[in-house]
Amino acid sequence: MIGDKALVVFSGGQDSSTCLFWAKKHFAEVFAIAFNYGQRHKIELEAAKNIAKRAGVQLQIFKIDLLSQLTENALTSQQIEIEKEKPADRPPNTLVEGRNMLFLTYAAIFAKANGINHLVTGVGQADFSGYPDCRNDFILSLNQTLNLSMDIQYTIHTPLMWKNKAEIWQLADELGVFDLVRNETVTCYNGIKGAGCGECPACILRNRGLEMYLKTKNV
Amino acid sequence: MIGDKALVVFSGGQDSSTCLFWAKKHFAEVFAIAFNYGQRHKIELEAAKNIAKRAGVQLQIFKIDLLSQLTENALTSQQIEIEKEKPADRPPNTLVEGRNMLFLTYAAIFAKANGINHLVTGVGQADFSGYPDCRNDFILSLNQTLNLSMDIQYTIHTPLMWKNKAEIWQLADELGVFDLVRNETVTCYNGIKGAGCGECPACILRNRGLEMYLKTKNV
Repeated sequence: MIGDKALVVFSGGQDSSTCLFWAKKHFAEVFAIAFNYGQRHKIELEAAKNIAKRAGVQLQIFKIDLLSQLTENALTSQQIEIEKEKPADRPPNTLVEGRNMLFLTYAAIFAKANGINHLVTGVGQADFSGYPDCRNDFILSLNQTLNLSMDIQYTIHTPLMWKNKAEIWQLADELGVFDLVRNETVTCYNGIKGAGCGECPACILRNRGLEMYLKTKNV
Repeated sequence: MIGDKALVVFSGGQDSSTCLFWAKKHFAEVFAIAFNYGQRHKIELEAAKNIAKRAGVQLQIFKIDLLSQLTENALTSQQIEIEKEKPADRPPNTLVEGRNMLFLTYAAIFAKANGINHLVTGVGQADFSGYPDCRNDFILSLNQTLNLSMDIQYTIHTPLMWKNKAEIWQLADELGVFDLVRNETVTCYNGIKGAGCGECPACILRNRGLEMYLKTKNV
């Protein structure tokens, strides 16, 4: 056990679902928080509810209206088409500026009000997608800033920080939730559960990792 | 001139109003952002609009519904009475946990979308009120975290960081807005413009500083 209570920033995707079960292994009590911030597909939140229920974890979903008013991107605006390929000179247009900072700040405020000191997030930089707020440097700095902001000792845990997608599948398998993660999570930018549309950048990354993992497993 | 464009996190109070005019002196173009986060007194936002108009600064007010749902305090809950005296062992119950972190994060997201790299906030630690998110250490750490979060070079300016209230009055005077700040801003926890109720902790701090400043000025 790492500690008594942990709060998982949860989305119903592969990464945060794996983190949810990782947290269940390492903490006596696990809570989950998810955000409805105007993302394209409400199926993500349905998946989150379903997975939290199966995990026996209390999930609270909060609405954030302001983020999509302040910044334009392909995830919250139906007017912008999601780029199929990663641009060479800038992050993909699915980047929601400031999203992880905002989610973790809200999570920390919620955690303080509920006597929780451990925060868990599924961000990682191994399969770097060009999102600056998934990097370890950012998380370390944010941890320090949150502690100073509220005069408390939070610890942000990032169990997936250095894992590629294949290793994340392996972790889910070790945690005994391989099938659940494979069938019930939503990673696809087009909002299709499980294996997804197979064509968007999120599906390609997820499915390539799955293939790699299954290959090494069957060796 | 420090730079071309600055965004002031604005509330219509003495401190942020003084910062607004400080920014006008040091930047070619000044923008202001204010938040309606369920604070007790809507008169604060009315004061903000009025002062921004007089300053010739474009103000945008955004609504944040989530903050008051996550954390309890005397500023956003009418059920909690504002403490008259500062407690010895903890911050006053007017502390809104995470507020400055959240406001500055939203401000930074807005700034990036609008090509602004300079953020200005009226926080300070000279007359330390017990709010951890007014301290210099927090602001320095936040600046670094925001830069990492969005891969950009923001500078957070805190012109009042080391000034006590008397010195803040002096700055307003030097900027030629002493009367405007004295008569049109709202600092009072009971939502009374100008000199306020005279009895809440915010009024006592403000009015004591004013007295001190007027004394040194008339020597």
